[in-house]
Amino acid sequence: MSKFSEVLTPDNAVLAMIDHQTGLLVSCADEHPLVVKNNIQGLCSMAKTLDLPSVVTASLADGPNGPIMPEITHILGDKVINREGEINAWHSSAFKSAIEATGRKKIIMAGIVTDVCLMFPALSAVEEGYDVYAVIDASATWNKIVQQASIHRLTQAGVKVTTWASVLAEIMSDWRCEKGMELGQVLADHTTSYNYVMNSYFARN
Amino acid sequence: MSKFSEVLTPDNAVLAMIDHQTGLLVSCADEHPLVVKNNIQGLCSMAKTLDLPSVVTASLADGPNGPIMPEITHILGDKVINREGEINAWHSSAFKSAIEATGRKKIIMAGIVTDVCLMFPALSAVEEGYDVYAVIDASATWNKIVQQASIHRLTQAGVKVTTWASVLAEIMSDWRCEKGMELGQVLADHTTSYNYVMNSYFARN
Amino acid sequence: MSKFSEVLTPDNAVLAMIDHQTGLLVSCADEHPLVVKNNIQGLCSMAKTLDLPSVVTASLADGPNGPIMPEITHILGDKVINREGEINAWHSSAFKSAIEATGRKKIIMAGIVTDVCLMFPALSAVEEGYDVYAVIDASATWNKIVQQASIHRLTQAGVKVTTWASVLAEIMSDWRCEKGMELGQVLADHTTSYNYVMNSYFARN
Amino acid sequence: MSKFSEVLTPDNAVLAMIDHQTGLLVSCADEHPLVVKNNIQGLCSMAKTLDLPSVVTASLADGPNGPIMPEITHILGDKVINREGEINAWHSSAFKSAIEATGRKKIIMAGIVTDVCLMFPALSAVEEGYDVYAVIDASATWNKIVQQASIHRLTQAGVKVTTWASVLAEIMSDWRCEKGMELGQVLADHTTSYNYVMNSYFARN
Amino acid sequence: MSKFSEVLTPDNAVLAMIDHQTGLLVSCADEHPLVVKNNIQGLCSMAKTLDLPSVVTASLADGPNGPIMPEITHILGDKVINREGEINAWHSSAFKSAIEATGRKKIIMAGIVTDVCLMFPALSAVEEGYDVYAVIDASATWNKIVQQASIHRLTQAGVKVTTWASVLAEIMSDWRCEKGMELGQVLADHTTSYNYVMNSYFARN
Amino acid sequence: MSKFSEVLTPDNAVLAMIDHQTGLLVSCADEHPLVVKNNIQGLCSMAKTLDLPSVVTASLADGPNGPIMPEITHILGDKVINREGEINAWHSSAFKSAIEATGRKKIIMAGIVTDVCLMFPALSAVEEGYDVYAVIDASATWNKIVQQASIHRLTQAGVKVTTWASVLAEIMSDWRCEKGMELGQVLADHTTSYNYVMNSYFARN
Amino acid sequence: MSKFSEVLTPDNAVLAMIDHQTGLLVSCADEHPLVVKNNIQGLCSMAKTLDLPSVVTASLADGPNGPIMPEITHILGDKVINREGEINAWHSSAFKSAIEATGRKKIIMAGIVTDVCLMFPALSAVEEGYDVYAVIDASATWNKIVQQASIHRLTQAGVKVTTWASVLAEIMSDWRCEKGMELGQVLADHTTSYNYVMNSYFARN
Amino acid sequence: MSKFSEVLTPDNAVLAMIDHQTGLLVSCADEHPLVVKNNIQGLCSMAKTLDLPSVVTASLADGPNGPIMPEITHILGDKVINREGEINAWHSSAFKSAIEATGRKKIIMAGIVTDVCLMFPALSAVEEGYDVYAVIDASATWNKIVQQASIHRLTQAGVKVTTWASVLAEIMSDWRCEKGMELGQVLADHTTSYNYVMNSYFARN
Repeated sequence: MSKFSEVLTPDNAVLAMIDHQTGLLVSCADEHPLVVKNNIQGLCSMAKTLDLPSVVTASLADGPNGPIMPEITHILGDKVINREGEINAWHSSAFKSAIEATGRKKIIMAGIVTDVCLMFPALSAVEEGYDVYAVIDASATWNKIVQQASIHRLTQAGVKVTTWASVLAEIMSDWRCEKGMELGQVLADHTTSYNYVMNSYFARN
Repeated sequence: MSKFSEVLTPDNAVLAMIDHQTGLLVSCADEHPLVVKNNIQGLCSMAKTLDLPSVVTASLADGPNGPIMPEITHILGDKVINREGEINAWHSSAFKSAIEATGRKKIIMAGIVTDVCLMFPALSAVEEGYDVYAVIDASATWNKIVQQASIHRLTQAGVKVTTWASVLAEIMSDWRCEKGMELGQVLADHTTSYNYVMNSYFARN
Repeated sequence: MSKFSEVLTPDNAVLAMIDHQTGLLVSCADEHPLVVKNNIQGLCSMAKTLDLPSVVTASLADGPNGPIMPEITHILGDKVINREGEINAWHSSAFKSAIEATGRKKIIMAGIVTDVCLMFPALSAVEEGYDVYAVIDASATWNKIVQQASIHRLTQAGVKVTTWASVLAEIMSDWRCEKGMELGQVLADHTTSYNYVMNSYFARN
Repeated sequence: MSKFSEVLTPDNAVLAMIDHQTGLLVSCADEHPLVVKNNIQGLCSMAKTLDLPSVVTASLADGPNGPIMPEITHILGDKVINREGEINAWHSSAFKSAIEATGRKKIIMAGIVTDVCLMFPALSAVEEGYDVYAVIDASATWNKIVQQASIHRLTQAGVKVTTWASVLAEIMSDWRCEKGMELGQVLADHTTSYNYVMNSYFARN
Repeated sequence: MSKFSEVLTPDNAVLAMIDHQTGLLVSCADEHPLVVKNNIQGLCSMAKTLDLPSVVTASLADGPNGPIMPEITHILGDKVINREGEINAWHSSAFKSAIEATGRKKIIMAGIVTDVCLMFPALSAVEEGYDVYAVIDASATWNKIVQQASIHRLTQAGVKVTTWASVLAEIMSDWRCEKGMELGQVLADHTTSYNYVMNSYFARN
Repeated sequence: MSKFSEVLTPDNAVLAMIDHQTGLLVSCADEHPLVVKNNIQGLCSMAKTLDLPSVVTASLADGPNGPIMPEITHILGDKVINREGEINAWHSSAFKSAIEATGRKKIIMAGIVTDVCLMFPALSAVEEGYDVYAVIDASATWNKIVQQASIHRLTQAGVKVTTWASVLAEIMSDWRCEKGMELGQVLADHTTSYNYVMNSYFARN
Repeated sequence: MSKFSEVLTPDNAVLAMIDHQTGLLVSCADEHPLVVKNNIQGLCSMAKTLDLPSVVTASLADGPNGPIMPEITHILGDKVINREGEINAWHSSAFKSAIEATGRKKIIMAGIVTDVCLMFPALSAVEEGYDVYAVIDASATWNKIVQQASIHRLTQAGVKVTTWASVLAEIMSDWRCEKGMELGQVLADHTTSYNYVMNSYFARN
Repeated sequence: MSKFSEVLTPDNAVLAMIDHQTGLLVSCADEHPLVVKNNIQGLCSMAKTLDLPSVVTASLADGPNGPIMPEITHILGDKVINREGEINAWHSSAFKSAIEATGRKKIIMAGIVTDVCLMFPALSAVEEGYDVYAVIDASATWNKIVQQASIHRLTQAGVKVTTWASVLAEIMSDWRCEKGMELGQVLADHTTSYNYVMNSYFARN
């Protein structure tokens, strides 16, 4: 089976959230900040709902980069691997060990900024045989052309470029699965219009 | 003093939220739905914080238009004036009486869709001497050109076209006012980047 | 009462459709041609539903400009006033007489191209005391900046710049009016998403 | 011969329309809803004209997702495979069997939303040796970046990303084929400007 | 009669082309440079066709601003009033005298850059009772927001903001006028799509 | 003489820079932050070159809003009026006095954010008879629609909405004035392409 | 040597212009029609300057598609291979023979519409071993998403997607080649700003 | 190890800046000129900070193309290889020798215009086994579609398409490296918002 047809399951995937720090977030302008925040919350809530292992890391959180955005730690917990200097999180033994400890070979990965914090660990992990899902809309960066160039370079290197709701649906697989209704609610909560559709529907019952 | 230099105060203004119903919201495409929802929440929270009188109305809420979005009733309460047919809310005696009962002559008004639910009561109220603030970014409509045409027609008729955060700042007036810190929090909660700035700042204290 | 607060009624308005010819339509690029066609159909269907008097005119229909788009004549009938040279339809005695013959002083006007076929008769009619509704989204022109400049110049001269669905709602006034359900259907038929909302709703009954 | 140079014919292709449901459609914002509807109608009419086998499927049509949009069933008939939970239609034995029963190895596939309902069956079918044409403009999704990411991931996996009019032309091959004039009419009916060109042309005969 | 309903005629108007110099043109980015060039050529050809008096002026043409673009002098002739320093052309007695010498009170005016070379003489001329047509699409400037701000400020001061093809149609008035066919050709030559329509049409005769 | 035809001179104008603080700047998204910074530098350098009086104010500079951006104080000096709470700078007696002390009645005003820090003092100053130039591109705000609504509301109230390079040209008036060459350099330094033109030109001398 | 590093020369390339017909051109909306015309003229003039063999073909030129745009035949001559029905020009023996007769294996190819008239012969030619340069900006199609999908599908199949000025530069190779100055003039004539630069430069000699 | 996972280091990379000449820069319109200049400065400052070898070349610098922009020579020094005619810099023995003399096999390359001055040497270098980083945002070209087509063609040929800040971070690798603080300052100086964040942070120390 080709890697590009393999799929995520609750048992084969780990979530890596890299450098979503408040000082970096305000520098991003490729997508509306409200949309980025929403997507990050949706992605993390999906992981939480499925008890997916997750690794959160920050770079120099005591400096201008600031702390991890509270929306992430609120969902995934306060454990954050603070890196003292490694730009590529994969170069941090604490980060890499945390991934390896899960024994999982598919990494759902997002980072701020896309061209750095997501790009480099994604390339490194693919090189070591991991199947990397780069969640482009739960990442963010300086501007649109940086986002576009990143999509091309990630794709070229064999990374799967994807989006948070697609990841949720891929891992959910079936609405009748154990956590189907909960995941459906996570999806609706973060796809505004679809939530209105559900509101209209259930208002009649 | 010219009307255009007069300002909102907690004592001279009433909030009118018109037809923000889930079935209508999904038809709007002039702004990102997540942004519209955020702005509506910000506007209503401002009113709640200041105990500003507010009037919420819906048009045919039992039909396809659906109920008022729960984000509004969650903040402003469940009282909704359901109109049985009047497109222009000003033609509803229940709505107009509710406004008049407040004794206030400045109306902060938002509606879905902009070119109908906001436009017509705004024109009617101005004609009767009210000072109308049309909150264009807490309203929404079919597409961008409808939004643009509406801004021109409202301005032409003497309505003040404004935005939710500007309204908050105008009515707040001074950070040292009684509700200053609470209003500041409402502002930050709904201006994503500014909230990150505050997070970074207070993380150091 | 200020002109800007007066409203359209089925008894005070006439529809004027100016130069919506197939050879001109393909030159327009300010809005998607599918959207323009849809809006024109919505506007004409509204007039038809209300038996509103309408005047359709074309400029040199035997030449490259081509015939009136069949979507209009299909709804409003085949009567077209063909002008042999007057660019400003108001300068055509046949056109002007047709408007005057209705005895109505409010003109709902659309034209291709906006900056010419809509602009000049709108300015002329306003000068003679008519209340002109320039339906900007049932008109079309060369590109976006021409549309924008036209909105400013029309507004400056006292024309009301509006959009087709806003016109429908203004003239409809109340869902319980005689033609309320029919007008509602016209609205839904030409506001795609809203029609899906109605489909979802009625699928459950 | 490389897969990428093989072409569609009326004898080797099947159409799969996946989850074009009214409750999902209102949540899509990557293209204008009127354009999406138009493209879907064009694609289905092409299939109808050529008596191409088609499979229509829906996901939980009794819930908020709502029924298949009537524009599809109007053209392709009322037979819809309702899935009780499988997100990836390829996991539905009814859907997969229906495709297999046609004996055809090229699938013209469209779905709402692109990143889920089109993406997953496209990847699965390619893995099993099918030649998949992902009709990106008869599909729709949450926003532009999701559309872009989907195009990259589909292309990376060997899916052909295409558009409805290109599919029509590829399968038509020659204007002198049996259904040439009918297919030409389908094309014109759904490419607005080209239809005006034909109107102008035939008005002179 | 209100100024806003008065119209251009071949006898009451003068064309003023201000500072369309090659060194300035390359700094403009509010519209595509090819479109700006095309519009300027269309506007000048209209004036040439009607023997409209025209005044061309340049600012410091021997310096970095460079010479008037050859497309203008090719049509209107080599006479250029070179200003040695006055930014507002109206402050140049040579320029102002040239306008006054025509005895005409309506000025069709374009300039590079919009916010300076068009803006200031437009404001000055309006103040002295002239009726100024600011041809926004035969002018150009640094970026879009400067164009937008200029439209608002010009309109506020009573200038008519318009576009080149609208001016041509206004002054042409009737296709049967003496120069009707020639003006029609000017229009077609500079509205690309409309020229294709004419090509298609006349290919059949 | 109408206010709208009056012009700025080095002797009648004062510059007011309001709340360009680093914590607010990162929240703005209506224009590229690099462009906003560039425009602010251009505007301040113009004032510096002409020894124009200037007033700089900040709101709660010790809190999250942060200090005035160093690019301003570097040019205009370190004197900043820190407001302890007044949102509308005009309500600060220190600020208003500083303006009044100049004896000048034309205020060149910019602020972050446009809809608050620029809007309210602009409305207040106009009410008191000042001629206010709102420099929209040396101001910035949350997003595009807030910028657009602000332009309409400012214009409606009689404020002149303008841009930094237009202000520079208006006040410069003539290239031969005392500071002509210096102002020309300020212009070039902050209009990137025009600077390249000058580079090309002088490289040959 | 990889195909992707091989280059065009005046001796190894042939130009194929496919279906640039006036009736089709007016239906295209992915780029401004003026820009498309300009690019087509630039590409054809390059071929003419180098005496590159060229093949022009049209589809049903007597019907609504209309004749080849006169800008092409003006440069390349009146010889047009009219296809009576083949959509893929490669299926026309007259067209294919004309290409083969040149003995050249690199085809510079452009077509209206991109997704059909350029796409299918490009795929066919690549399959037979030709090196195809798809000139995306001398082609045009219905809208932006069709252009984007076409770029992806062409690239996926091994076609080189390029643009007209890049082709000119690649085949020119050196400014000192025999036709260097002539090709430089073709480039300048169709890159508006660069022509202004040359005007400024030579105005000083 | 796959080429796509290899990384830049201060010891394996050389910077090539190709044809960033003032006469060419004013013709570029795919990104804002201020942003392009900023990115070029950032890229060159990174190289300077690391004492990375760099090669700067110009094409016909005495003609209309003009000199290398002073921002580059200010940072990297005045040594410029002037090519007398070779369009592809790789064909210049002086340029190629300069690259080879560094003994480095990874080239960080940028050029004006992207589709020519960056494209051709990138393709040539990749063919000879170099690992080429095409810095798309320190390059510029005629318009957006040329940029997009270039990204696809470069990627197809195995070039890594990247952006300046990503290059800086890749080569920096760790904030604790010898030049970490200096590189961080280069990054901040050219990512406007991030600099404001640092300003806010250090204002409190």
